[in-house]
Amino acid sequence: MVPIVSIVGKSGSGKTTLLEKVVAELTKRGYKVGTIKHDVHGFEIDCEGKDSWRHKRAGATTVVLSGPGKIAVIKDVDKEWPPEMLCFSFINGADIIITEGYKKAGYPKIEVVRKTKSLKPICRKDKNLIGIASDIKFKSKDVPRFDINDSKGIANLIENRFLRKKTANKIDLMVNKEQITLKPFINELLAEAIKAMLSSLKGCKNPKQIELKIRN
Amino acid sequence: MVPIVSIVGKSGSGKTTLLEKVVAELTKRGYKVGTIKHDVHGFEIDCEGKDSWRHKRAGATTVVLSGPGKIAVIKDVDKEWPPEMLCFSFINGADIIITEGYKKAGYPKIEVVRKTKSLKPICRKDKNLIGIASDIKFKSKDVPRFDINDSKGIANLIENRFLRKKTANKIDLMVNKEQITLKPFINELLAEAIKAMLSSLKGCKNPKQIELKIRN
Repeated sequence: MVPIVSIVGKSGSGKTTLLEKVVAELTKRGYKVGTIKHDVHGFEIDCEGKDSWRHKRAGATTVVLSGPGKIAVIKDVDKEWPPEMLCFSFINGADIIITEGYKKAGYPKIEVVRKTKSLKPICRKDKNLIGIASDIKFKSKDVPRFDINDSKGIANLIENRFLRKKTANKIDLMVNKEQITLKPFINELLAEAIKAMLSSLKGCKNPKQIELKIRN
Repeated sequence: MVPIVSIVGKSGSGKTTLLEKVVAELTKRGYKVGTIKHDVHGFEIDCEGKDSWRHKRAGATTVVLSGPGKIAVIKDVDKEWPPEMLCFSFINGADIIITEGYKKAGYPKIEVVRKTKSLKPICRKDKNLIGIASDIKFKSKDVPRFDINDSKGIANLIENRFLRKKTANKIDLMVNKEQITLKPFINELLAEAIKAMLSSLKGCKNPKQIELKIRN
């Protein structure tokens, strides 16, 4: 799976601003970055009267817009999808995922602490906290502290921890909407066995990418 | 794969309006409908200044918004994805997909013919034309003609042709981004073989839904 890093912090602390800078910096370094914004209160993306809005209002459970260089999807879900399922389903080909929000999830996280909002990190006891970006000069002995505008320093942290070593794993697997982590041997075995089974089928020569869904 | 039906016609003929009515009618009958709008000239969905817009502008190749009951995805693609790939990737759990556009693709299609726009169907020689919705009372001997507002009649046509018989197929398969159609025996064999291979792994008991991606 692609590594996921979360930018967290109080409302109004500047999460989007920091995310923008870090994404721009990582993109400049040649990485492909996907982002997820966690909107606990829901969001509006579609404008009234647009065709996609009309499709949705008519009752479509999923609306897809497809253009030459861009796709948009608006989709109803029964309950919130966890980030790893969003990544698996929607973000292919990215080197790293940066989320805005998900402070309670178990991903490595960087907290934005802005003095007008709080004086201490809200995630200071979270073992997944890997960095703090702040306009306060407090000391943090456990995790590195960066200036709130130091996107280069934070990009370095992410690059060193998550982007240097390439994973050799070939398979991403979800069973009953849960991500299954496979040991390298099983991963290799399963990938080769499925490729072997498919190899005699028409259209399946030299498979570079196989995507498969089985429902019961 | 889920059946795909296209609503096609000249620009301004009323494709969106007919699609809305047909989607509403099928939804009322208890079907889950997904829609795809083909926007050959590109589209704008995101509003300047919104967080998703800021993520995208910073360089993210894919931006996902996740809320309690809804997901939105905005994604760059190198080239246009064909509808079956959009369905495979984004539209799970739908009974039918209705597209707006794709007049040149090989899906069953219903053409909207509005007298202020054209006097003849542009797809009249297309063997995939299954119906015409029009405000002109011409005769069509090969395909049924409906009044331009007869969403019930058109929903009946779609229901009878595509929604009555349930497919027994268990596997959807894409190899190198091309959909592979499996014969029922191969479909069953492959589904059972993969389930058997996974069955001894932790977290893979009683798999109702397996999604798997292999990259080379």
